[in-house]
Amino acid sequence: MSATRAPAAQLVLTALPGIPLVQAGDDLAALILAGLERAGLALTTNDVIAVAQKVVSKAEGRCLRLADVTPSARADALAALTQKDPRLVEVVLSEAKEVLRACPNTLIVEHRLGFVCANAGVDRSNVAPHGAGLDEFVLLLPVDPDDTCRGLRERLRAATGAEVGVIINDSHGRAWRNGTVGVALGAAGFPALQDMRGHPDLFDYALQITQIGLADELAAAASLLMGQADEGRPVIHIRGVPYALREGSAAELIRRKEMDLFR
Amino acid sequence: MSATRAPAAQLVLTALPGIPLVQAGDDLAALILAGLERAGLALTTNDVIAVAQKVVSKAEGRCLRLADVTPSARADALAALTQKDPRLVEVVLSEAKEVLRACPNTLIVEHRLGFVCANAGVDRSNVAPHGAGLDEFVLLLPVDPDDTCRGLRERLRAATGAEVGVIINDSHGRAWRNGTVGVALGAAGFPALQDMRGHPDLFDYALQITQIGLADELAAAASLLMGQADEGRPVIHIRGVPYALREGSAAELIRRKEMDLFR
Repeated sequence: MSATRAPAAQLVLTALPGIPLVQAGDDLAALILAGLERAGLALTTNDVIAVAQKVVSKAEGRCLRLADVTPSARADALAALTQKDPRLVEVVLSEAKEVLRACPNTLIVEHRLGFVCANAGVDRSNVAPHGAGLDEFVLLLPVDPDDTCRGLRERLRAATGAEVGVIINDSHGRAWRNGTVGVALGAAGFPALQDMRGHPDLFDYALQITQIGLADELAAAASLLMGQADEGRPVIHIRGVPYALREGSAAELIRRKEMDLFR
Repeated sequence: MSATRAPAAQLVLTALPGIPLVQAGDDLAALILAGLERAGLALTTNDVIAVAQKVVSKAEGRCLRLADVTPSARADALAALTQKDPRLVEVVLSEAKEVLRACPNTLIVEHRLGFVCANAGVDRSNVAPHGAGLDEFVLLLPVDPDDTCRGLRERLRAATGAEVGVIINDSHGRAWRNGTVGVALGAAGFPALQDMRGHPDLFDYALQITQIGLADELAAAASLLMGQADEGRPVIHIRGVPYALREGSAAELIRRKEMDLFR
């Protein structure tokens, strides 16, 4: 794992213009390539593309009609405790390994992919209507975000020849701090966790911080530019990441349960 | 609190070149202004300046010689448990309100400023030697990062006329996820917590995510560009933040203890 620093000292994030509302079955790689062209950007090795979780989920058809969901007894009980829709709770449970906290208005779980988040990332906002009431639909997280990133990376390489990193970002709440921040749900071609062990500091003293959550830092920056209230900016092109890309996945960012002091 | 979105869809972070190693008593505002001039950047209203915690601490003379520290009985006991230097633990306790977790190699506290972090942010790496052994010195966090940000903001406004945001960033570990990410220890002139309540989504459905940790997202981006292994990039100029600046402080980001489910 190399931590070679490129000389560039500028990080430039550009929201690709004109990305249309995404529908189930849409070809995200094609939408990204068209957006790059619209922005006048030629992909270069070491660039990173960040894609909003929401459009990945939509392209994968992860939209679910609540009317089609029958809550289990467990979902009913948790819904009463959390004051949430039992059908929504049922969907959350279907995406969760474990419930960490449940109290009024709050349901925090370990998602089947390993990360901890509210409602297993199941979202009722910005879900495209299909001719029915808006609150009838929910959107689940992508099936395998790391795999989707690998696929997009392959497609972008095939089309442009550039070796790029790809991340899928979402916004998560955190322990101890107010406000959500962007985190990487998926990553490919990218040191999601950048190992700094063995790197001396300016005075040749071993660094105390040994691993940087690089994909999460990039996801936070991309999330800031995407905003929350619209989908007009679901794809961000990032140039100037001062670390060499490598194979990698967002799974690197998941702290093993037995190593976690704050469950 | 306004969330007006500027039309620009580009976020550009530039590391100011040529910032010298900072010493106690140095004038950070002057160093920033000189760095901006070197970079050929004219400060504009809505720009944000991110300053690394380490150089703020150094300018404030927050360097401490471990030889001058006498550990208390409590520090001795915690040092035995955590396998850390009792003098370091004494310094950590002097900066902490409460110890949250203590086990071998780990000491996580609530800092006197309210945030949760390892070792109260007390750092042994990249601390400038003063003619003695390198491991003899530690660096404490700034006395009042929000106040320092306000002061820098005033100085930058006086010098340039621009209304800018200022943040002081540090790298913290997190519950549940591997790797450190940049967070804002201090902020001024900036919506550290961006309130999105009342903003409809694309389909006029109320947003589920209501507060964005904007200063932390910017801190993460700045931290990525700063890197960890050197101090050559301790000041980052940021242009294109798609939210209107306002008064603000990093204190907004601290979740009240009684609201925290993960202590």
